Amino acid sequence: MNKCYNSSNNCLIDKAKAEKINLVWHRYEKMKPLCGFGEKGICCRICMKGPCRIDPFGNGAQEGICGANADTIVARNLVRMIASGTAAHSLHGKEIAKTILHIAKGETKNYEIKDVEKLKSVAKKLNINVDGKSVNDIAKEVAYKSLEDYSRFEEDPCTWLASNITTSRLNKLNSLGVALNNIESSVTDIMSRTHMGTDADPINLLLAGLRCALGDFTGMELSTNLSDILFGTPEPVISEANLGVIRADAVNIAVHGHNPLLSEIIVDVADEMQQEAINAGAPGGINIVGVCCTGNEVLLRRGIPLASNYLSQELVILTGALEAMIVDVQCIMPSLSKIASCYHTKLYTTMVEAKISGADHADLIGDKAIENAKEIIRKAIEAFKRRDTNKVLIPEEKNKIIAGFSTESIVNLLSKIDNEKPLRPIIDNIVNGNIRGITLFAGCNNVKITQDHNFVEMAKTLLENNILILATGCGAGAFAKNSLMNSEATLKYAGESLKAVLTLLGNEAGLNSPLPPVLHMGSCVDNSRGVDLAVALANELGVDLNQLPLVASAPELMSEKAISIGTWVAGLGLPLHIGLMPPVSGSTLVTNVLTLGLKNLVDGYFIVEEDPSKAAHIIIETIEEKRAALNITSNFRGTV
Amino acid sequence: MNKCYNSSNNCLIDKAKAEKINLVWHRYEKMKPLCGFGEKGICCRICMKGPCRIDPFGNGAQEGICGANADTIVARNLVRMIASGTAAHSLHGKEIAKTILHIAKGETKNYEIKDVEKLKSVAKKLNINVDGKSVNDIAKEVAYKSLEDYSRFEEDPCTWLASNITTSRLNKLNSLGVALNNIESSVTDIMSRTHMGTDADPINLLLAGLRCALGDFTGMELSTNLSDILFGTPEPVISEANLGVIRADAVNIAVHGHNPLLSEIIVDVADEMQQEAINAGAPGGINIVGVCCTGNEVLLRRGIPLASNYLSQELVILTGALEAMIVDVQCIMPSLSKIASCYHTKLYTTMVEAKISGADHADLIGDKAIENAKEIIRKAIEAFKRRDTNKVLIPEEKNKIIAGFSTESIVNLLSKIDNEKPLRPIIDNIVNGNIRGITLFAGCNNVKITQDHNFVEMAKTLLENNILILATGCGAGAFAKNSLMNSEATLKYAGESLKAVLTLLGNEAGLNSPLPPVLHMGSCVDNSRGVDLAVALANELGVDLNQLPLVASAPELMSEKAISIGTWVAGLGLPLHIGLMPPVSGSTLVTNVLTLGLKNLVDGYFIVEEDPSKAAHIIIETIEEKRAALNITSNFRGTV
Repeated sequence: MNKCYNSSNNCLIDKAKAEKINLVWHRYEKMKPLCGFGEKGICCRICMKGPCRIDPFGNGAQEGICGANADTIVARNLVRMIASGTAAHSLHGKEIAKTILHIAKGETKNYEIKDVEKLKSVAKKLNINVDGKSVNDIAKEVAYKSLEDYSRFEEDPCTWLASNITTSRLNKLNSLGVALNNIESSVTDIMSRTHMGTDADPINLLLAGLRCALGDFTGMELSTNLSDILFGTPEPVISEANLGVIRADAVNIAVHGHNPLLSEIIVDVADEMQQEAINAGAPGGINIVGVCCTGNEVLLRRGIPLASNYLSQELVILTGALEAMIVDVQCIMPSLSKIASCYHTKLYTTMVEAKISGADHADLIGDKAIENAKEIIRKAIEAFKRRDTNKVLIPEEKNKIIAGFSTESIVNLLSKIDNEKPLRPIIDNIVNGNIRGITLFAGCNNVKITQDHNFVEMAKTLLENNILILATGCGAGAFAKNSLMNSEATLKYAGESLKAVLTLLGNEAGLNSPLPPVLHMGSCVDNSRGVDLAVALANELGVDLNQLPLVASAPELMSEKAISIGTWVAGLGLPLHIGLMPPVSGSTLVTNVLTLGLKNLVDGYFIVEEDPSKAAHIIIETIEEKRAALNITSNFRGTV
Repeated sequence: MNKCYNSSNNCLIDKAKAEKINLVWHRYEKMKPLCGFGEKGICCRICMKGPCRIDPFGNGAQEGICGANADTIVARNLVRMIASGTAAHSLHGKEIAKTILHIAKGETKNYEIKDVEKLKSVAKKLNINVDGKSVNDIAKEVAYKSLEDYSRFEEDPCTWLASNITTSRLNKLNSLGVALNNIESSVTDIMSRTHMGTDADPINLLLAGLRCALGDFTGMELSTNLSDILFGTPEPVISEANLGVIRADAVNIAVHGHNPLLSEIIVDVADEMQQEAINAGAPGGINIVGVCCTGNEVLLRRGIPLASNYLSQELVILTGALEAMIVDVQCIMPSLSKIASCYHTKLYTTMVEAKISGADHADLIGDKAIENAKEIIRKAIEAFKRRDTNKVLIPEEKNKIIAGFSTESIVNLLSKIDNEKPLRPIIDNIVNGNIRGITLFAGCNNVKITQDHNFVEMAKTLLENNILILATGCGAGAFAKNSLMNSEATLKYAGESLKAVLTLLGNEAGLNSPLPPVLHMGSCVDNSRGVDLAVALANELGVDLNQLPLVASAPELMSEKAISIGTWVAGLGLPLHIGLMPPVSGSTLVTNVLTLGLKNLVDGYFIVEEDPSKAAHIIIETIEEKRAALNITSNFRGTV
């Protein structure tokens, strides 16, 4: 098995071997065989009577010491994963809401509100009257209303949930008791009910997991929209991706993690310090590159090139040409600290809740954020002088990309065709079959799968079948690195009718070339953008989300966040393909609920298929079924 | 190894064997060998690249696939345990705060405020002005102020934390950044920072764990005090304990779990329905018995006899004479459902967040609470008619107990000696060495230890050495069942000087016999009562908590709640003995922090000692060191 689909990345893996540096792939090999109990979700470490393990062959223990069976154990483990995913996304949003409040109160000078128009449109969506109010007053109200979703104890559903889905969907979720009132309470509820001797009913546990996952969605809507208010709503931007964006002649600084609060400051400060880098002997000045979802954030808003998505994050250091890696939260391999120490690279953690032993720490949230950012960059410039050119190996490959497809930017673009009803061109083309449907690719990389392989292989088949692709997170990174986010990719991979639509739209947008066939919508927290677009389409069509010819896919999922995202995607009514079995196979009941039972409850459900080709064809069939149900089976047929 | 220290319980284990019913001890045997990775805390299931396991022998993988080492993995697993414990306790408190709010707003008739005096004293403690306000208005303010500890986003410390510890302790916790502002945020923070690729610094993780654990303390103070407002503050009460409290001639109904909101309704309703039971052929009427901490709650406030603590909960059904078991939350073995089905026993879950497959569910929180409670009792009466006398075996043993030692009741009692300064008699006797010190026993039972053995054996040694014992939770249950909570126990086990003090106090209290040598302070959520007493003593002496000759012990700990309690006990400055190594031994760093490093930070620390005799002597030595440091080494010496 190749380690990376992108061959230019693999040369750095060979370099690591030569330099006796262990990377994620080596650690995976060393970890084998993986624990089968854990893989199946039937290991319980929830109290100290155990740990307990259910014998999957039916010979040994079929119950934990307390009497919990495999169904209960699997469900409890699964919902704890959801709780962690929701917690991660929701705290991200809370930080941003608090920052907006600080700005509105004049308590910080580190940030300002960049998108007043979005502030007002968000305020209106949240039922806040904006007439005659100052920007700061509106911002304050938006921040307080957002923070209510973290503090409410009355039973009303979260504002950011209720105001961002279709009415029929909200009614359905309310009737199931899963339209949560408070994000942090939903996380706490999971941790409470999974305590030893509390909820032992797998269905009850899974419903609570769904509620908590909808808290993940709530936090995500809030994060994305408030980030746009703070840093600007993405517009199409041209940039580059892959390790080739690292430059031999520049002080290279990678920003990595998820929270744009940090990276925006770094990018701002770096702009001011270009001359210092040139003076230090780097003619290229300072070159900021992105990794993982922080990379996506600054790519979409600032055009910063993307060096890597999750799995190849270590390779950015392996180039030997990285002066500093600045990390915030989530998906940061602790291994970076050891690997950086093999080079001249400085590793900085920047948030108090995410430190790494061996890394330097400089707070980029508090009062000293700008001062600390300057200090970090200065250290990076100093490190440049210690770069060992003998150890430098920068793969040449980099690809042009067009990114920045926020829902707003897509609507803006389409309004050039139909100013009155901007979504009509998309809807018309879906109805007439030029676009068969839409797939939203999201989620992580996983070392168990050749990096990016599933994303790219599935996309090729779907595009050929005239299915438009939206992408976020490390999925978007996969497409960016592998040249699927530019006009050439449309010409190369899109089926005839999709190609025609994207060419028309590209021309209307003034690109003089087709739109890319995979639209980069942002980081993983920006999966909400996909929902916003889907809700707009559903409302325009007068249907609910589950009726749209829309399927989501996380073909290389890995993190607990992916589990929570997947669960709310299903809760919103969408089929969701995953390319790897989560740790639930130890319970037939739980597996069946996820893949079948959920459909009866919330219309959405999980499709587990490891083979990317089969998965693509299942998605095509699912889309065709949705089309048939909507009675929009036009004569045109793809290659299915 | 005997299964239960209390021999009368063991006959039911034999009965189970004869009836081919598996109990917790059988399931434990079947589970062996337990997973060594899990026991050491070096198994990580936090993302889907793994699961990962660190080789404790140093030959195999020393890092997870992401690069996290044993220290990080152990710390993450540990703080997730704390998060669950805190979540469990804090939701318990939140339910009660919301209930008080509902009462104050006239939204429920199921409950009323029983202790107006306590309401006022709590209000004053929370800096609420009570002058000229109605009970409902005060209650409303207390409820809102309490709920703020679940919703605050400003950085001020939680009200219930700040107002219940010494000033110097609060300053210390503030300086460490662990005086949390919001309980649910502290749980969410743990789940967020333990997400893959976030906090990888074990010390940083442990500090966050300490903050979250202090949220557990906050929730506990709130739970206990608001429960007292709602249901009355416990006063000394005489009752009985052990399985012998189940009566052959009565409809026996067990209440089990932790939340008094449910059991109080059951007890009220049962009182009204006695005649129905008698009419159905049960001359003894309805006999409510308690199990676990719900048992402790109704024991302390209503004198309901206690049938069992945690580990022997299944035996209550095994008597064949239990008509219904009504459970709420936490520490309820899912096995109860299967075991109840072997008898005529009805099993009812009562809270929506804690269902059990195979049990009936009747909500005892909402509008229909009283109606549902009546229905449950009616079903129990019906079940009585199906009781199979051939399957009945009720062990005869039951012990007289005096319970109900809330901090207030202790102060009331002492004020009969010194009305001005009620704590002086205790302090004087500590200073003069008649009472060498105090040990607070708390925590669970664990199947790895003969049930109650460590509690009882340690207590005997400590009492002999004139150390007064306070007890809560399943520790209190152990002492109640094993006849250590009555005057006879004082005569039998207390050293001469302790016996003299307890005899004097008993006489002053009008008991005409000594106070028991082990004072029952309530359920595990009532560990806050022990803190309240300690804080009062510390303030009176003008010292901080860590200076008191006071040690806590959880010699048979088992649940995640026990981990969070243990952590805040250390955070408040107290040494804490535990009788079993938690899953941390895979990291020398984490183990050292808990047993040594914590002491430098917060004065408190963990003492791990499995042998109860050694543990008792370590506690005695620790108390003597504290006495020496306070310069109160009187001439009197115990048997050390």
